[in-house]
Amino acid sequence: MSSHETISASDGADFAELKTNMNVDYVIHYSIPSDKAEAEAGFIQLIEALTKVGLASEVRHGDASSLLVFVKVASNQYLASQIYRERVQDWLYSVRTSAPEKDVVRAFENEPVTEAERLRLVYLLITKPRNEGGAGITPKVGLWKQVNSIFPLHDQAFNSSWIKAWSKKYFLDEEDLDHMRNKFGESVAFYFAFLQSYFAFQIFPAAFGLGAWLILGRYSWLYAFATSLWSVVFFEWWKKKEVDLAVQWGVRNVSRIQHARTKFEWDHEAPDPVTGELVKYYPPMKRLRTQLLQVPFAIACVLVLGALYIFCFGIEIFLTQVYNGPFKSYLTFTPTIILSGILPVLSAILTKFAEVLTERENYPTNDAHTSALIRKIFIINFITSYTPLFLSAFIYMPFGNLMVPYFQIFTSTAGKFYSENSITTQEFHINPDRLKSQMVYCAVTAQVVNVALEFVVPYIKRVAFKKVESVQAKRANQNGEAIQDAPEEHKFLERVRDEAKLGVYDVAVDYREMVVQFGYLSLFSSIWPLTPLSFLINNWVELRSDAMKIAMGSQRPIPWRADSIGPWLNALGFLSWAGSLVSSAIVFLFSGESEGPGGDPSNVHVVGLLVTVLFAEHLYLGTQFIVRYALGQIDSPGLQKERKERFAMRKHLLEETLGPDAMEVATPPTIKTGEKITLAALEDEARKLSVGSGGTPEHTFWLRQQGMNETIQIGRKLISQAKPPKH
Amino acid sequence: MSSHETISASDGADFAELKTNMNVDYVIHYSIPSDKAEAEAGFIQLIEALTKVGLASEVRHGDASSLLVFVKVASNQYLASQIYRERVQDWLYSVRTSAPEKDVVRAFENEPVTEAERLRLVYLLITKPRNEGGAGITPKVGLWKQVNSIFPLHDQAFNSSWIKAWSKKYFLDEEDLDHMRNKFGESVAFYFAFLQSYFAFQIFPAAFGLGAWLILGRYSWLYAFATSLWSVVFFEWWKKKEVDLAVQWGVRNVSRIQHARTKFEWDHEAPDPVTGELVKYYPPMKRLRTQLLQVPFAIACVLVLGALYIFCFGIEIFLTQVYNGPFKSYLTFTPTIILSGILPVLSAILTKFAEVLTERENYPTNDAHTSALIRKIFIINFITSYTPLFLSAFIYMPFGNLMVPYFQIFTSTAGKFYSENSITTQEFHINPDRLKSQMVYCAVTAQVVNVALEFVVPYIKRVAFKKVESVQAKRANQNGEAIQDAPEEHKFLERVRDEAKLGVYDVAVDYREMVVQFGYLSLFSSIWPLTPLSFLINNWVELRSDAMKIAMGSQRPIPWRADSIGPWLNALGFLSWAGSLVSSAIVFLFSGESEGPGGDPSNVHVVGLLVTVLFAEHLYLGTQFIVRYALGQIDSPGLQKERKERFAMRKHLLEETLGPDAMEVATPPTIKTGEKITLAALEDEARKLSVGSGGTPEHTFWLRQQGMNETIQIGRKLISQAKPPKH
Repeated sequence: MSSHETISASDGADFAELKTNMNVDYVIHYSIPSDKAEAEAGFIQLIEALTKVGLASEVRHGDASSLLVFVKVASNQYLASQIYRERVQDWLYSVRTSAPEKDVVRAFENEPVTEAERLRLVYLLITKPRNEGGAGITPKVGLWKQVNSIFPLHDQAFNSSWIKAWSKKYFLDEEDLDHMRNKFGESVAFYFAFLQSYFAFQIFPAAFGLGAWLILGRYSWLYAFATSLWSVVFFEWWKKKEVDLAVQWGVRNVSRIQHARTKFEWDHEAPDPVTGELVKYYPPMKRLRTQLLQVPFAIACVLVLGALYIFCFGIEIFLTQVYNGPFKSYLTFTPTIILSGILPVLSAILTKFAEVLTERENYPTNDAHTSALIRKIFIINFITSYTPLFLSAFIYMPFGNLMVPYFQIFTSTAGKFYSENSITTQEFHINPDRLKSQMVYCAVTAQVVNVALEFVVPYIKRVAFKKVESVQAKRANQNGEAIQDAPEEHKFLERVRDEAKLGVYDVAVDYREMVVQFGYLSLFSSIWPLTPLSFLINNWVELRSDAMKIAMGSQRPIPWRADSIGPWLNALGFLSWAGSLVSSAIVFLFSGESEGPGGDPSNVHVVGLLVTVLFAEHLYLGTQFIVRYALGQIDSPGLQKERKERFAMRKHLLEETLGPDAMEVATPPTIKTGEKITLAALEDEARKLSVGSGGTPEHTFWLRQQGMNETIQIGRKLISQAKPPKH
Repeated sequence: MSSHETISASDGADFAELKTNMNVDYVIHYSIPSDKAEAEAGFIQLIEALTKVGLASEVRHGDASSLLVFVKVASNQYLASQIYRERVQDWLYSVRTSAPEKDVVRAFENEPVTEAERLRLVYLLITKPRNEGGAGITPKVGLWKQVNSIFPLHDQAFNSSWIKAWSKKYFLDEEDLDHMRNKFGESVAFYFAFLQSYFAFQIFPAAFGLGAWLILGRYSWLYAFATSLWSVVFFEWWKKKEVDLAVQWGVRNVSRIQHARTKFEWDHEAPDPVTGELVKYYPPMKRLRTQLLQVPFAIACVLVLGALYIFCFGIEIFLTQVYNGPFKSYLTFTPTIILSGILPVLSAILTKFAEVLTERENYPTNDAHTSALIRKIFIINFITSYTPLFLSAFIYMPFGNLMVPYFQIFTSTAGKFYSENSITTQEFHINPDRLKSQMVYCAVTAQVVNVALEFVVPYIKRVAFKKVESVQAKRANQNGEAIQDAPEEHKFLERVRDEAKLGVYDVAVDYREMVVQFGYLSLFSSIWPLTPLSFLINNWVELRSDAMKIAMGSQRPIPWRADSIGPWLNALGFLSWAGSLVSSAIVFLFSGESEGPGGDPSNVHVVGLLVTVLFAEHLYLGTQFIVRYALGQIDSPGLQKERKERFAMRKHLLEETLGPDAMEVATPPTIKTGEKITLAALEDEARKLSVGSGGTPEHTFWLRQQGMNETIQIGRKLISQAKPPKH
């Protein structure tokens, strides 16, 4: 039974009493609706469903209108059998190269169960559909609409030592990532591995950018080329690294084992061509037709968001550079106010659209659904993030002067509110620093604001809430309405109540932020070469603030497995490629003495621009090809390891079944034991045959020369008869 | 022993006496130098080397100055063990999904040995290095410089029935390809499979082209778009088909099992990271540096061949369109004569360069060496094939009028030979049909010439040679010098002597031809929309003439295995992509009323051209992305089969080792048997603990509610106390 003890939840005895998680695997936060009969019925269903799949439960007060249901696996033996089954399944799907040990006890000794493994399987027990052996509990849906959330409890001791360790070092090492992986699963660990690699790689463009800023100035060809090369190398390198990590963490191909999506609607059931089991089937061509709707969706995004941006952009230019009337200093904020008022609404509407569209694409698995959604969200993000810079670089700077007549509209609109003569305008001049100041905003201000929004604001909010609550609690206490906990549990329960209030950590949000940043770097950083340095500093903070977000700002994430950074890889590739187009165009337009066309399109040499862009893109693609080839020459240690293990496993199997000498080189029959020679006794008979009739021609043919020596004899005779060409 | 009989060479008894191959596996054609002592020594070494690896030999007269050494495996048992070893190796390298049967006899019953398998292994026995268990015989190199060739004998009966069958059907089916594979190996079968698929796919552009020719005319956008789309679909489809075929033929991943290159020079020996065996090692970065020489090589090719073409092109334009002096009708052939005189020489020199370069890149395996060479040969071919059309489309047509002053050089040169006044010139006019007539030449004339050169000429040559020989033989007979064969062997030996004179079949030559044709189609066919129709007809003939070339015009090829069409795939992809650029540029330049800029560059709208090309390329890349995605949605039957087999194999192994119920769903412990409940006896004690002190907090925590029913009871109580938000 020793093997089972090792897989019980973390031993509380090591930590102070307050840090124990009471062996709880998951907490279910159950809210009580006003209809108490409904609440009771739902609660009973919940406990019954949990018990049926072998989970033990305890219930405690949540806040005034909710319960906390604590769940743990009733029998460790049952959990062990589940884990063993999963490991076997991993092997069936080529995630593992070798099957787990036949002896279960030894299997768990060799590969102890990690916390992530345990938590993942318990979560699956709670949420998997009933027909697959789970309790089928889906928070906030249908029968389970009272279930607010299902979350594991933070390991406080680990979290605080982890955050402390990270704040003291510059680079994370493999061990740090391994810790992440054991606690939060590969999905989160991959994000940190990516961020760490990205951070380390950024040192190069940061240093080069600093040099360029000092020596080459803005809009430098050399800088743009170096950044583009860097982005190619980083992208290709990460693709390899990703595979390596997956092999090292034993999760390669894990994306093949998919968790079925609850809302999937199937056409018919058919046997799976690989496993032979009945699976739900939806024709991919039908899905493809729905997917094509992404094209109008993308166009709609461009139009809607583009229109908003152009509108605000026009007002802004007007107010800052043309308008000179009353309230100018206040009015300049108008576009920002409009943008920050309308943009979130539009984004939300488009995101909703994206969700509906993805829903209709009807993917059978959660992973496919998520990545389809991410693709669409990426389009929205791409437009909202980069449009302002696009407009400045490719509309304002080259066509600025052409816009002047249109400002008349604004002037006359403004004139309706004020007496016409109070509107004074100044002559329009292109602001040559507009692009740079926008870029500085994106690279510095926006990043700082973002860290603040992501980390500081929730912190303040939490502190404030706590304050309010403690006041409420005091009042309730005075009224005798306070929740009564057993004193030895009180602090633990308070902690759980706090965690129940936290949000769910969504790794996609953090990825999105980094990918958008990568886009700024590869598309626009030639505008201000200090951009990468600023990002480098930001990412050092980001790495730690994301860690804190997980440790303190969110519920502990479900430790999902993953074998890559998923759809974000394509987004990175796309941005890296787009960078070759955009940055070459920017450098072409703005490099040189005049720094840009100054609002007059006739200053733009269109053929030169097109040739430059065309050339830059093909240079990019060529470089990518070469880098890919060169990196392909270096064998990935991860894949090598995998091949090695597979080879060893097969050789082992072979020796087991065929005996140890199966692969040894068989020695050919020696000269005197050839088949021909064993016929020596029949020699005379054979000669007769060869001269006279009888015997097949084949037989006769091979009996003319008996053995090597005779062949050599006859050969010599033939050579002596030959007439070789004379020299 | 029954298993061994099945693998003996084809039974002669089925065919007429003359069609038997006398059970010969290979024939070694050994030439006798003038130094007969040397000849003898070499011959003895040859026979000894063969005998040592278990091969039996017979020697007969070749022609006047050569010998024919017939080789067969002396012991079928030894061959069987070799084949079995190879199958096991296949499994170790993931070529097979399952190991061969443990029982050797049953293994050969389930999977009988094909002719290709037997011949391949015997060839390896003859040629593999000695330390790997072969005789190490390399024709024409070092010790073996007297060995002219090593070849298997044609299966006459099969060949004639095969050619007869093919001449009667339009499409080859899978069975035809299977026959090819069994006789000539996967390497040749892949070529025919590719050609067949390409032929079938061509029906679409042929039909569309015919329609375009009738309705849309030349330089049609629609036609160019359709062809480009077609090339994308064909390319992506073939990539899938290739994998399918490889799985079906059991050769997927066979490219991993590489045959070491004899001339490979290694830096040091190191243990292979996968198998642990000592292997020769050459640092890939060192190779990469040599590979970078390909860039100057490609530039040199462009310069050298480009210069030749431009020179001839200039002369040609001058003579046909400017010059009007004496001998005009003869002089117009000058450029053709120069080109056909110098081009082969230059090509040969560049090919030699390519060979030297590839040699210096020092690849460890034959496959890597071959594909590196093919890449370089492709560059040469690309330039020689397409430069004339490039020059006409992008130099002659837009810049023709600018060339006129330079013709003065020719006029004055010509003036040195004749009295100045006899040189009359006509006014230069762009020939608008030049491009079309060139394309027609490439699509029709060149193809017909090619079939003739490839098939008719060797045939005539062979007939003529035969004639000469029979005259010589008659004379020799009269002089009593004729070679004396045993009468019952005479006809067989005559046939072998004929085959010894044939060339070696090189599948790369045929691939090259098809790839170049594909390039014409995707790059230039919008010039003359009947091009694909012409190619379709040509390929019907090509398929059969290539078959005849193998059956009658070449020695029987060594049946190598292959898992793809190798480096040609990249060449196809490159041409398909280049097609998007070139054909869009051509259509932009030449579509419309005027059919081209008529020699005046000011007629070219440069911005429009660049935008068009840029747009076309990105449309191409976008389409490729979508087609790839769509085809990726359709599961490949081959890969599915492979996964299925692997899954089944693993499941089988699992059941063998873990028992049949290993994968069954374990039932969770029922409600009353949960761990908590088994503690029921301790109930009172526990209650005491939970109230008083003692026991770990975790223990106490989980003992408050004993079993599901108590949890429900307490939950109800808590719900009744709750204060849910009022509605």
